Amino acid sequence: MSQHIVVIGGVALGPKAACRFKRLEPGSTVTMIDQSSLISYGGCGIPYYVSGDVSDAKELCTTSFHMVRSPEFFKEIKGVDVQILTKATRIDRENKEVHVENVTTGETASISYDKLVIATGAAPRKLGLPGEDMQGVSYVCNPDDATRIREGISKGEVGNAVIIGAGFIGLEMAEAFADMWGVETSVVEITDQIMPRLVSPALATMGQKHMEENGVNFYFGETVQAIEGEDGRVTRVVTNKRTLDADAVIIAAGVVPCSDIAKDAGLNVHERGGVIVDEFMRTNDPDIYAGGDCALVKHLITDQPAYLPLGSMANRQGRIIGTNLAGGASTFDGVVGSFVVKLFETSMAGTGMSLEAAEAAGFDAISVLLIQLDRAHFYPTKELMTLEMIVEKDSRRVLGVQGFGSAGDAMVGRINAVAALLKGKPTIDDISNMELAYSPPFAAAMDILNTLANLADNALLGINRGVGPDGFKELWDNREERACHFLDCRELADAEAFIERNPEHWHNVPQGEIYKRLEEIPQDKPVVLICNTGARSYEAQIMLDEKGYKDVVNVHGGMAAIKKFGVDL
Amino acid sequence: MSQHIVVIGGVALGPKAACRFKRLEPGSTVTMIDQSSLISYGGCGIPYYVSGDVSDAKELCTTSFHMVRSPEFFKEIKGVDVQILTKATRIDRENKEVHVENVTTGETASISYDKLVIATGAAPRKLGLPGEDMQGVSYVCNPDDATRIREGISKGEVGNAVIIGAGFIGLEMAEAFADMWGVETSVVEITDQIMPRLVSPALATMGQKHMEENGVNFYFGETVQAIEGEDGRVTRVVTNKRTLDADAVIIAAGVVPCSDIAKDAGLNVHERGGVIVDEFMRTNDPDIYAGGDCALVKHLITDQPAYLPLGSMANRQGRIIGTNLAGGASTFDGVVGSFVVKLFETSMAGTGMSLEAAEAAGFDAISVLLIQLDRAHFYPTKELMTLEMIVEKDSRRVLGVQGFGSAGDAMVGRINAVAALLKGKPTIDDISNMELAYSPPFAAAMDILNTLANLADNALLGINRGVGPDGFKELWDNREERACHFLDCRELADAEAFIERNPEHWHNVPQGEIYKRLEEIPQDKPVVLICNTGARSYEAQIMLDEKGYKDVVNVHGGMAAIKKFGVDL
Repeated sequence: MSQHIVVIGGVALGPKAACRFKRLEPGSTVTMIDQSSLISYGGCGIPYYVSGDVSDAKELCTTSFHMVRSPEFFKEIKGVDVQILTKATRIDRENKEVHVENVTTGETASISYDKLVIATGAAPRKLGLPGEDMQGVSYVCNPDDATRIREGISKGEVGNAVIIGAGFIGLEMAEAFADMWGVETSVVEITDQIMPRLVSPALATMGQKHMEENGVNFYFGETVQAIEGEDGRVTRVVTNKRTLDADAVIIAAGVVPCSDIAKDAGLNVHERGGVIVDEFMRTNDPDIYAGGDCALVKHLITDQPAYLPLGSMANRQGRIIGTNLAGGASTFDGVVGSFVVKLFETSMAGTGMSLEAAEAAGFDAISVLLIQLDRAHFYPTKELMTLEMIVEKDSRRVLGVQGFGSAGDAMVGRINAVAALLKGKPTIDDISNMELAYSPPFAAAMDILNTLANLADNALLGINRGVGPDGFKELWDNREERACHFLDCRELADAEAFIERNPEHWHNVPQGEIYKRLEEIPQDKPVVLICNTGARSYEAQIMLDEKGYKDVVNVHGGMAAIKKFGVDL
Repeated sequence: MSQHIVVIGGVALGPKAACRFKRLEPGSTVTMIDQSSLISYGGCGIPYYVSGDVSDAKELCTTSFHMVRSPEFFKEIKGVDVQILTKATRIDRENKEVHVENVTTGETASISYDKLVIATGAAPRKLGLPGEDMQGVSYVCNPDDATRIREGISKGEVGNAVIIGAGFIGLEMAEAFADMWGVETSVVEITDQIMPRLVSPALATMGQKHMEENGVNFYFGETVQAIEGEDGRVTRVVTNKRTLDADAVIIAAGVVPCSDIAKDAGLNVHERGGVIVDEFMRTNDPDIYAGGDCALVKHLITDQPAYLPLGSMANRQGRIIGTNLAGGASTFDGVVGSFVVKLFETSMAGTGMSLEAAEAAGFDAISVLLIQLDRAHFYPTKELMTLEMIVEKDSRRVLGVQGFGSAGDAMVGRINAVAALLKGKPTIDDISNMELAYSPPFAAAMDILNTLANLADNALLGINRGVGPDGFKELWDNREERACHFLDCRELADAEAFIERNPEHWHNVPQGEIYKRLEEIPQDKPVVLICNTGARSYEAQIMLDEKGYKDVVNVHGGMAAIKKFGVDL
């Protein structure tokens, strides 16, 4: 029996649902409407167009085989009817009709449906600031914004750029401005770190430091109070602490779901926005589906509703909706929150929850930080990778893993391996025994993920008690009051320079000599153990434990993490 | 209560078990014995030392912080006593003693144990050929072999090398000879593909083609009958089909577990060798553990015993044994068979079972092949990745994924994500919904793994019926008899050159024009649909299905796979 499907929204989920449905029911018809003239574009590629990595904005709107995903393309290639510049104004559920308005002519009409898909997406969060609508102020939304931003830069109009918000898009845009174009770029962030809640302060600082080395300025803990300019063009951003020159301002303060049309139709919508759907991606009206950036999802770590506007998720959900429109029973369980962002020559990625997010959700959790080479230590091309694992104390359940590494795929590959497991509620032991493919050009014999889980195991056992580089910094900054004994347990040659610079505080006993030189290590002071990465200092901690030392702490990640984090020694 | 542990074997599992135990029970003692003078080396690094990637063989025997893992290192740093050049001759379980013999002096002794670890490893499989013991014939075993092989090359003594066996080590050694040193290198393999049973013929051919382009010669389906030489030095390898000049011969025909000492002590050993252990890595004697290359494991896809000699697994098992020696109850569930090997600028990896292995194990399975870019198609640096998924028909259970891609970490990252899931018996839907981290520099919005599962879904649904590049080649090679209609459904510009070369057999109707030009497509012949990668031709298949065509086949992977596979068109 032939059906007519209407899809409101033509960017990510809409086209996917429409095309999947048409492949399953080629005899049925689909009308996809969108209020803009731009459909089916790769919005996530905008920073790479602005940076110049992508040379033509059209590439964001083409298939991998270089056809423009225009209304004609959808008609001919996919068999989907598209009406652009057509805004859905109301859903009449009783008569199963969508009321639409042509945004150019104002003409109205109604389109009847057998089943409806709401794929209205999200809108950038506006800050409600004076000057927010001035020329030169942009949200990173669609290829038109991208074109405008890049035109400004390439005409030489942008000497200073200010990015508001240090989440994914803010950081990607900061890189785009600073890397390719040498624009003086500043990021203003209301919290005190990049990627707040997503990664720990330790990882955030590593990423921040790398971006600063590449010319990006950060102002944390500042709120923007006004955007000012002349003749309607932006020239300055005023925060509660300073005024920054700005020829271009990017507001990257998140997005809000466009769910009003669903709410007005009496569909279940969360009080803070976002359509509520079941595991079949169906609203409380069995003939209406919703997904992508306009809908909420279940977070599989907390089992609570969550809002995660991601193009990749929209695509997966779109296929599920397409299948179900054709009578299938495909399900979307929820999300674990996987992400990755490239920051110049490095990358930051994660899945599940950071310690901060886990604690906020009520978990009694710990985190451990590990730094290790991403392949066999004897293999010539290798880089340090930092991973952090969040574990619930009693259950040993792994709640998340986040990492900072080179811009290659090695780190995100580890994150993905954990992401695959997360919804099955893995314990430390599942990661400790995880069977990753091994060969020296790709991994160490004991993969960094295995070692990370082993570290968490030892931390819970209480035999590896440590702090990360941020904890070390705090101890070091207060070295006078705390009277800690900082014990470098590498060989003397490695420690010498630090002893010279800090003769009072920095001490050395190589780990292998600890039993012989116990008298050099005080029993009445906290001992802080440091080596290259935290492995030898862990052995040292076991030795001191055995000799009855009561107050010993190991620096997880050792000098390698301290260096990436940035502590003056 | 202090214990004395004896460990027989000091390469991978032995040291790991010993050191883990000592960290948990620093007050106990461990004696580790090894019949050679070389311990705790990274055997998997040997091909990279031979190639010159690793400059000094010592690096295979050092820690990441550059300390040589000598007996003194184990004593001072790890608290483990090591006796090298000490061969275990017999285990006296009744008196809990190991009888040993000094291999230099012939002196014998016995060492009593509270608990014993058998970590005797494996020995290279010998072929029993005339000439196998000649100078210039090597097995890839330990750093001494590596040094000898590389010395020969660097002295200019090796113009021709013959490798026997096209498994991991054979291929790695072939690359080592051909890449860095320009040695004329041939690989002789008894089966008809590289990496037999591990990957499909299609993937194997892609890897083989790349290696041939880099100067390696392959001789498949040939058995070596003799190794010949002059004055005790090898000069030729004689197969059943030809004679190959050879100044160096590498026998890489697999390894056999060294489990005789366990068998002689009355421990359970498989009839084809390999100590049998339970999930705690314990033999049938509760005081004796075994693991690594001398033991069998459970294969988690078949639930049958399997032999998988891998350094990475030995390390993980070693930790488990160390924990259990100290009273823990850590378990090793089994293996899924993850692997990766670098082949010049490419890599081959997999987890679970290939179609051939799955069918041999009794599964009623299919495989699908997908080729896709490893990141967003608009991102400037991107490469094609080929993945194959093996699925059990009725249950939709995923039995394995194998792939061929660039030498970066993108492909192995996907394999690892599936590997993480495999022991939980995932279905297609688990991979279809897998939440991989997304950002254009790292992935497509619909990750290749998601698309791969979707392809398997469509194949099982019967709406995407296809063959891989090997199936295409078979159809093409028999194009006269079969009278297939090869229909290129890309745009004319892409198809033109092929039509010119094969005007009788190669036809073109762009997918978007199929409904308009149906009369050009015969109903009475098998139609073979081809596009760039198999996606548009899938749309075309749906269109022809709708129009009542009965015999239509889609070429999975399209021209991209055909090109990597190598078909003359």
